[in-house]
Amino acid sequence: MNPQLSVSRRTRSTPFTNRVEAAGVTAYTVYNHMLLPTVFESVEADYWHLCEHVQVWDVSAERQVAIEGPDAYPLIQLMTPRDLSKAKVGKCFYLPLCNVDGGIINDPIAIKLDEQSWWLSIADSDVILWAKGLATGMNLDVNISEPDIWPLAVQGPKAEQLMARVFGEQVKDIRFFNIRPLEFKGVSMQVARSGWSKQGGFEVYVNDAATGQALWDTLFAQGQDFHVRAGCPNLIERIESGLLSFGNDIDYDNTPFEAGLDRYIDLDADINSLSLPALRQQKVTQKLMGMVLYSQAKVTDTVIVINGQQAGEIRSLCFSPKYQVQLAFVLVDLNHIALGDPVSVATDTGEQPGLICHLPFDFVTLGLSARIL
Amino acid sequence: MNPQLSVSRRTRSTPFTNRVEAAGVTAYTVYNHMLLPTVFESVEADYWHLCEHVQVWDVSAERQVAIEGPDAYPLIQLMTPRDLSKAKVGKCFYLPLCNVDGGIINDPIAIKLDEQSWWLSIADSDVILWAKGLATGMNLDVNISEPDIWPLAVQGPKAEQLMARVFGEQVKDIRFFNIRPLEFKGVSMQVARSGWSKQGGFEVYVNDAATGQALWDTLFAQGQDFHVRAGCPNLIERIESGLLSFGNDIDYDNTPFEAGLDRYIDLDADINSLSLPALRQQKVTQKLMGMVLYSQAKVTDTVIVINGQQAGEIRSLCFSPKYQVQLAFVLVDLNHIALGDPVSVATDTGEQPGLICHLPFDFVTLGLSARIL
Repeated sequence: MNPQLSVSRRTRSTPFTNRVEAAGVTAYTVYNHMLLPTVFESVEADYWHLCEHVQVWDVSAERQVAIEGPDAYPLIQLMTPRDLSKAKVGKCFYLPLCNVDGGIINDPIAIKLDEQSWWLSIADSDVILWAKGLATGMNLDVNISEPDIWPLAVQGPKAEQLMARVFGEQVKDIRFFNIRPLEFKGVSMQVARSGWSKQGGFEVYVNDAATGQALWDTLFAQGQDFHVRAGCPNLIERIESGLLSFGNDIDYDNTPFEAGLDRYIDLDADINSLSLPALRQQKVTQKLMGMVLYSQAKVTDTVIVINGQQAGEIRSLCFSPKYQVQLAFVLVDLNHIALGDPVSVATDTGEQPGLICHLPFDFVTLGLSARIL
Repeated sequence: MNPQLSVSRRTRSTPFTNRVEAAGVTAYTVYNHMLLPTVFESVEADYWHLCEHVQVWDVSAERQVAIEGPDAYPLIQLMTPRDLSKAKVGKCFYLPLCNVDGGIINDPIAIKLDEQSWWLSIADSDVILWAKGLATGMNLDVNISEPDIWPLAVQGPKAEQLMARVFGEQVKDIRFFNIRPLEFKGVSMQVARSGWSKQGGFEVYVNDAATGQALWDTLFAQGQDFHVRAGCPNLIERIESGLLSFGNDIDYDNTPFEAGLDRYIDLDADINSLSLPALRQQKVTQKLMGMVLYSQAKVTDTVIVINGQQAGEIRSLCFSPKYQVQLAFVLVDLNHIALGDPVSVATDTGEQPGLICHLPFDFVTLGLSARIL
């Protein structure tokens, strides 16, 4: 039997929790001290529906850390090795935040709202404490807060059509990782083309609980013929799509190089970033990669073995119903494993062979063809 | 139906999770990104057992933030308004950590291991980010880490007898909130007389997973005649005992004065504390107090009403089987409510009267007598 989650004030509910429960949520996780749905019908049924139709997700747990004031940009630049000196208002940026050792302390989407106002739409760690600690220690001229913003994601191939019905055709003009204020029932809310799936869609940064609830209801009323359902970030879809999860796949002990986030590190930029000195020196000896396991046997240990030696660790794992294999994100020791190496993992039917590959998964090169339900 | 908890690498398991599950855990919460058991048989059955016998608790989620180096004390003193200038090695200190506004960011037990080495045994927020942010910003000479320490609590009226069987009679010499290293199977571990109940007991700071598992098994083998069971921090026991829960009863928006923690604020101390300037200025207008609700009806709203006006909020609530009333911690507006005031709350049988009182509850003054099962 799976254990239940004890819900309390500390595991904050959201303006959508009643609706999520009425829609039949069966499991949650706790993320940024807040309820985040993880399963409705089943992970696999939710997955197929997401790939085919449109879902509304309560991702209020993506909390916003608002950083405002003359030192907003300098503080954010200190926190990341990605060069934001030319960032434009109205854009979103995937941003590894790193400490002085280069370790990742979060990987938010940064949103530049105006020249002195940013949001960090965070993964699961208390970025507000890191930002406030730095700002206090350095006496920076910023205001840092966690405003009551509850993002609602609309995801799936029919997301754009549904959003256009609710917000008008103008949503189609919003390009990927762009954000702009749109009105719903007279309330202006930021709307971005983004979301934690690769099925397309938007995130609405709801800033008023009652309006957000009306928006939820309108999305369902307007989306009946699109088979709209309540959904949530989906384990299978995010692994197939190569989307990392902070705390699962990467954590404080990993640098962005180890996470394969090289393109978000501007080693040569003339910026004041806490982590760049360490990252410039780093010799990468472990790296997050993909693993394909052709067996469907239940994996019983996270250790990856090559030639009888421990050579890595499974960090996330799912069965892919589309490709009929198990897919994993694995942190591997580059001294022991290279691309294409055959490895083995322990399962309930004994040791089973796996194959190490690039991320994101390239299913064509892997010789895997998609099965359509 | 209560929702399940989705367990992943991000909701870290502990060296004891297998044993906790074998012992029949039925619910968890997530605390410091880690599994914390909340229910075994039922909250009420667990409660009666805790009050009568002895329980072993997996409180690994009480993570240790280790702060070491020449600036360890100066950094910790900056973080708290409690005067630690005369703190002695081998002592534990309940410590509100506050930001520059006086807001509580955590309320750990601080442990002074030696002159330059402290642990903060934390509640549920990422204190490591706050401490590292300050240390980085101020260029302090400290090393800050979260070592692999998994506290195991032994709680209940028979805890001392059981601990004496396992660690020897010397445990009886450890006074409340004192800590010292003791050996188990040749491994030295810190042992304190402390724990998140008022039933008495100890916390063992397990520093080796295999030794910890052997300790768990030994406690059960040696404690059979004491009716030892797996347990966990218990909602009823902690409310009856007046033990606060960070994130439930108090959070970033509350100062220690509002939380009733006045005795941990040294307003006149000559110390360098970030929060003291703000706390010296604060006029307290809201305060955490107790509420007794004589009805057993299910409370349906957290709002507390007096004379038709919203005058406070319920933060934690339980039915006390010992006193046959509902007990709550409530944050009240001091402009609207005073001690002994009759208030009302919404329940599924309509509005029911409540009584505002001091914390911790003084059951004698309240005229409540204990029922023994």
